[in-house]
Amino acid sequence: MKQPPAGGDRGLRAIGFDPGLAETGYAALVAGRDVPAVLGTGVIRTQAADPLDLRLEQLFDAIHGVLAAFAPDLMVVEDVFSTPAVPRTAILMGHARAVICLAGRQRKLVVVGITPAEVKRAVTASGAAPKAQMARAMQALLGLPGLPRPSHVADALALAFTGLSRARGPVAR
Amino acid sequence: MKQPPAGGDRGLRAIGFDPGLAETGYAALVAGRDVPAVLGTGVIRTQAADPLDLRLEQLFDAIHGVLAAFAPDLMVVEDVFSTPAVPRTAILMGHARAVICLAGRQRKLVVVGITPAEVKRAVTASGAAPKAQMARAMQALLGLPGLPRPSHVADALALAFTGLSRARGPVAR
Repeated sequence: MKQPPAGGDRGLRAIGFDPGLAETGYAALVAGRDVPAVLGTGVIRTQAADPLDLRLEQLFDAIHGVLAAFAPDLMVVEDVFSTPAVPRTAILMGHARAVICLAGRQRKLVVVGITPAEVKRAVTASGAAPKAQMARAMQALLGLPGLPRPSHVADALALAFTGLSRARGPVAR
Repeated sequence: MKQPPAGGDRGLRAIGFDPGLAETGYAALVAGRDVPAVLGTGVIRTQAADPLDLRLEQLFDAIHGVLAAFAPDLMVVEDVFSTPAVPRTAILMGHARAVICLAGRQRKLVVVGITPAEVKRAVTASGAAPKAQMARAMQALLGLPGLPRPSHVADALALAFTGLSRARGPVAR
């Protein structure tokens, strides 16, 4: 386990985001003596029938709310650049990812992107683990009573976990 | 020419954005009795060596500055969804476009997306006009002393012009 930042008695906090315009999953973890503890998880939704600029504002405002609630030190956002999705979907995901990164920057967090393959390798030792295996790995690694659901939250947990396990000493601010 | 919004003596103002993370072109027009007048144009740049979240914040803050300076009623942002660019480039353009749309929404502008083909048809009657033809069309339509440069600014002028010419009566706020 990583040490909390020097001078504080509070463990390092990481929040993971699985970005999507329709659904963004998030999960906040705090490093502990043994395993990280889950501070909270959730899914932010916007409606496809609404204008894009309204959906972006709703997502952006919700992200700021989540960041205010969990006060993380580190934001880990799934890197979508290698996504094999259809172009429109990938570009919309890019829109969602941008307002998430912007909110993290505005709150002076360390913002890092991690690819799905890197996260899978970090938590299952396989860069091609299926979703069910990822969820089981997160349940085991965090000692959760049940499988994390939905899959956006399981992915966000894995992102935050990977971010915490990569952090070396106090996070540069 | 469109009428200015009821109750004001000020012509309808549109600002066009040609979104890009490295370079975003903008152009602000105001509807006049004859042809729209150019209020201002420019290019916002960010450095590829900087982290993505910093670049997004710089772009976002610069967009807010431009919107504060020109006080447009209408924001027209090039629609990038049909772009044939490589996925990474298209997704980065999506990131840039998101923070532009967000800034417009936060300032309660009407935000519309127009595809490159629609803009080309609107100003040259051909959906496949090359860049040089677009620039000449904008010079003629706006009575400019020279060709608009760089091409990001010419594109932004065409976006703003198309937005103004599409607006029907007072813009819903």
